[in-house]
Amino acid sequence: MARSAAGRRERRLAEGAGVRQMRFARVENRYPPIEVASADEIEAIHRASLGLLRDTGMEIMHEESRRLLKAAGADVDEATQRVRFDPDMVEETIRTAPSSFTLQARNPAKNLKVGDGSLIFAATGGPAFVSDLDRGRRAGNYADMCDYIRVVQSLNVIHQEGGCPCEPTDLPPDSRHLDFYQAAIRLTDKNWQCWALGGYRVEDAIDMLSITLRQSRQELKANPATLTIINSNSPLRLDIPMGEGLIAMSRAGQPIALTPFTLSGAMSPVTIAGALTQQNAEALALIALAQIVSPGAPVLYGGFTSNVDMRTGSPAFGTPEYAKAQIASGQLARRYGVPFRSSNVTASNAVDVQAAYESGMSLWSTIMGGVHLIEHAAGWLEGGLTASFEKLILDAEMLQMMRSFLTPIAVDEGSLAVDTISEVGPGGHFFGTSHTLARFENAFYEPMLSDWRNFENWSEGGARTGTDRANAIWKELLRTYEQPPLDPAIDEELEAFVARRKEEIHG
Amino acid sequence: MARSAAGRRERRLAEGAGVRQMRFARVENRYPPIEVASADEIEAIHRASLGLLRDTGMEIMHEESRRLLKAAGADVDEATQRVRFDPDMVEETIRTAPSSFTLQARNPAKNLKVGDGSLIFAATGGPAFVSDLDRGRRAGNYADMCDYIRVVQSLNVIHQEGGCPCEPTDLPPDSRHLDFYQAAIRLTDKNWQCWALGGYRVEDAIDMLSITLRQSRQELKANPATLTIINSNSPLRLDIPMGEGLIAMSRAGQPIALTPFTLSGAMSPVTIAGALTQQNAEALALIALAQIVSPGAPVLYGGFTSNVDMRTGSPAFGTPEYAKAQIASGQLARRYGVPFRSSNVTASNAVDVQAAYESGMSLWSTIMGGVHLIEHAAGWLEGGLTASFEKLILDAEMLQMMRSFLTPIAVDEGSLAVDTISEVGPGGHFFGTSHTLARFENAFYEPMLSDWRNFENWSEGGARTGTDRANAIWKELLRTYEQPPLDPAIDEELEAFVARRKEEIHG
Repeated sequence: MARSAAGRRERRLAEGAGVRQMRFARVENRYPPIEVASADEIEAIHRASLGLLRDTGMEIMHEESRRLLKAAGADVDEATQRVRFDPDMVEETIRTAPSSFTLQARNPAKNLKVGDGSLIFAATGGPAFVSDLDRGRRAGNYADMCDYIRVVQSLNVIHQEGGCPCEPTDLPPDSRHLDFYQAAIRLTDKNWQCWALGGYRVEDAIDMLSITLRQSRQELKANPATLTIINSNSPLRLDIPMGEGLIAMSRAGQPIALTPFTLSGAMSPVTIAGALTQQNAEALALIALAQIVSPGAPVLYGGFTSNVDMRTGSPAFGTPEYAKAQIASGQLARRYGVPFRSSNVTASNAVDVQAAYESGMSLWSTIMGGVHLIEHAAGWLEGGLTASFEKLILDAEMLQMMRSFLTPIAVDEGSLAVDTISEVGPGGHFFGTSHTLARFENAFYEPMLSDWRNFENWSEGGARTGTDRANAIWKELLRTYEQPPLDPAIDEELEAFVARRKEEIHG
Repeated sequence: MARSAAGRRERRLAEGAGVRQMRFARVENRYPPIEVASADEIEAIHRASLGLLRDTGMEIMHEESRRLLKAAGADVDEATQRVRFDPDMVEETIRTAPSSFTLQARNPAKNLKVGDGSLIFAATGGPAFVSDLDRGRRAGNYADMCDYIRVVQSLNVIHQEGGCPCEPTDLPPDSRHLDFYQAAIRLTDKNWQCWALGGYRVEDAIDMLSITLRQSRQELKANPATLTIINSNSPLRLDIPMGEGLIAMSRAGQPIALTPFTLSGAMSPVTIAGALTQQNAEALALIALAQIVSPGAPVLYGGFTSNVDMRTGSPAFGTPEYAKAQIASGQLARRYGVPFRSSNVTASNAVDVQAAYESGMSLWSTIMGGVHLIEHAAGWLEGGLTASFEKLILDAEMLQMMRSFLTPIAVDEGSLAVDTISEVGPGGHFFGTSHTLARFENAFYEPMLSDWRNFENWSEGGARTGTDRANAIWKELLRTYEQPPLDPAIDEELEAFVARRKEEIHG
């Protein structure tokens, strides 16, 4: 893309003038995690889930997974594909899972630490639809997918591309993962999540990362460069594509977030403790399988317990039950010493107050509950069916606020400011003091989306709501987007790889 | 208001069909409060603020307050009205403040416990304007004030009327407090907050409560029935009307929330630790004064530290700085063993995503920070300049969600549901199980405002945003509002009292 220097300068000026945002940075959460259950209650959930794995077990539809579990001492009934787990074996096996690991990005400044005090915000992944205020809701497609990735690249608060913002339904299903991977590599220099629906999609991701980073599979195993989500088919089932994906990822040393999809009242009991028991059983079984495949393989404990509306059966997200379940899930993950994955979710169909307060419930509960990876941290709408461009901006603002909140208050002689208060005295003003002048530039959080003008100025400026402003922001980010440079030789090699693989897939 | 029995039945049916909400109930917060500062840091703020009171002191413009403080051992310079406080005297004096107390409502089922684990949600108080989607923003007026109080009465999650939702600017300033008090008594059976701008407004409130509850002033002192906010004029000043109000309330044994208005960067230092130091100094001085007036008088430690936008000077609310300041304020209040008052705030000019996420920041930080009274818990918009009817509903929904979140997860054999999970087995469904059928009715939070329908049904239903739905809800609550019965003899006596006092005030 050749552009004139003058044009580039102009664009940069507009960028500076247009959208004010935080810089890309690691986020550390130093506050102690909140708890909603006692240590005894967590133990009760732990014991109940191990009892469930021992007596009832899981249906493991993937043959190789059954074989590996059997070799590790599990009780396998081939006729029913039922696998029962010895509690001691589970506890022993999961011990090799690391408490943290690093993920490479193609820009090393954007490498990510997962686990311990570190916090990763990933963009939404997986929606079937895409929407914005101008064009409404439409089926996911390649052009929108690329634009969405461009905005994800532009939003500094987002650490990771989340595994394809919207399904490119205008491309053939069997090979569209290649188009997504290629777009993720070209359009962003951040780490990106791959697809694990079947082992070949994992292998393609690793091959393309190998080309991009000029590293062997062995090097990538030591320094993982992608991540994926493995869902069990709750209740108590692992299907063949997910089993294949799990094994391929663990063998390659790439991290997986093992996430049962336990909607309380539908795929799990109507009680949160019951849903958590089932979630914990399924998560532990899958973590154990990953460790059996490859001891020390990086994994995350995934929590996704929410509830359905019992009057209609509709799934609900960002609810009080969701908040409690996420905090308890964090407690369970810490018990096992593995990083915790949760999500920023809402059932709202519009980028409205409901979307904001359900996402707010999600962010506060997961972050204060000690989450390490927030999947769908930005963009998810409609219970995950839609990737919204305006929701992406709304969430980015809320993520920026949470990131600022996580920076502790400085308490020292200078910040206590006793002399300054004394100097200003009763009825005075602090604007002009040397204490203020020395600090005002970085004193407070500066918003990207919030409008703090008074009513009169806001009205004169068009009385735009936050959602209207979000619309203008993503367009400005897209307009000023610059593709991160990629070695043309690598780009060519990726192009050839994708062409060859499409040929193989479609014959 | 005579209405036919048939009409009443019809109205009740509409009420049942119209708005689904929680019942009025006490809220207990059993989760341990979160902390953003270490014990050492809290001690540093404590010591710095005592040093400030000792060396710099406060300007106390109210003569009687200076006299009382002098008699208690404070150093008073009458020429400058400057009062300096001995740290030991402050620490000793505030010790008599109770850690909790009860507030009477005219409906005893709605009496409130303030302090310890109890949590009170008060409606917004004090805005100059009122707004709704249909009529826009307008000056506060008597008719809107009454309608707003009716909706506050109808919203079960709100515990307390917050001291007049909007100033009735169409009534004479000197006597409009009487009209507000009379409306609060007639239109709601909840506890209501009185005005403390000058002692006579407090005395009128107590006289009217005495008539309403048929209790003497002595009885009311033992069993308080109203509450007010006393703001210092930060930095370091107490003006005459607030001094009068403080003394009148404390003498009468009615609780006061002593709340410095410390906007960091304007009326307090640009550092949060500095703003907290100043807030703490002012709050301690006022708590000490209240205890000198009447040892054991009920008080609350008020935290209102927020920040300004340093580029424009606009006040900002619901910011990351606000959240941290509130949590630290809770830590300080607990250090002194007095209940903690905070607020639900936003700077947004519209009931939009910004209003929702700034209020969400406020609610999570104050509640998880151990607040006991949330002032402006519902309705506040535009940095407190406007009481919005739609914001009232939005906040009520968020308060309901927080209340549901505060109910801990039950963990016992029945809720762990191991047998049920086993019975359903791999790939099954929980809808029809006896475990679900026995529990589904009260299993999950049921929203008032959130719409969980899928996109197709939501679109067919008019694709209304949460703000549009809030508009329909407050109108439905107003339409089905029933005035709580009041003994006609009491009503008459109040009428006569108000008439007499207006005569006295206006001559």
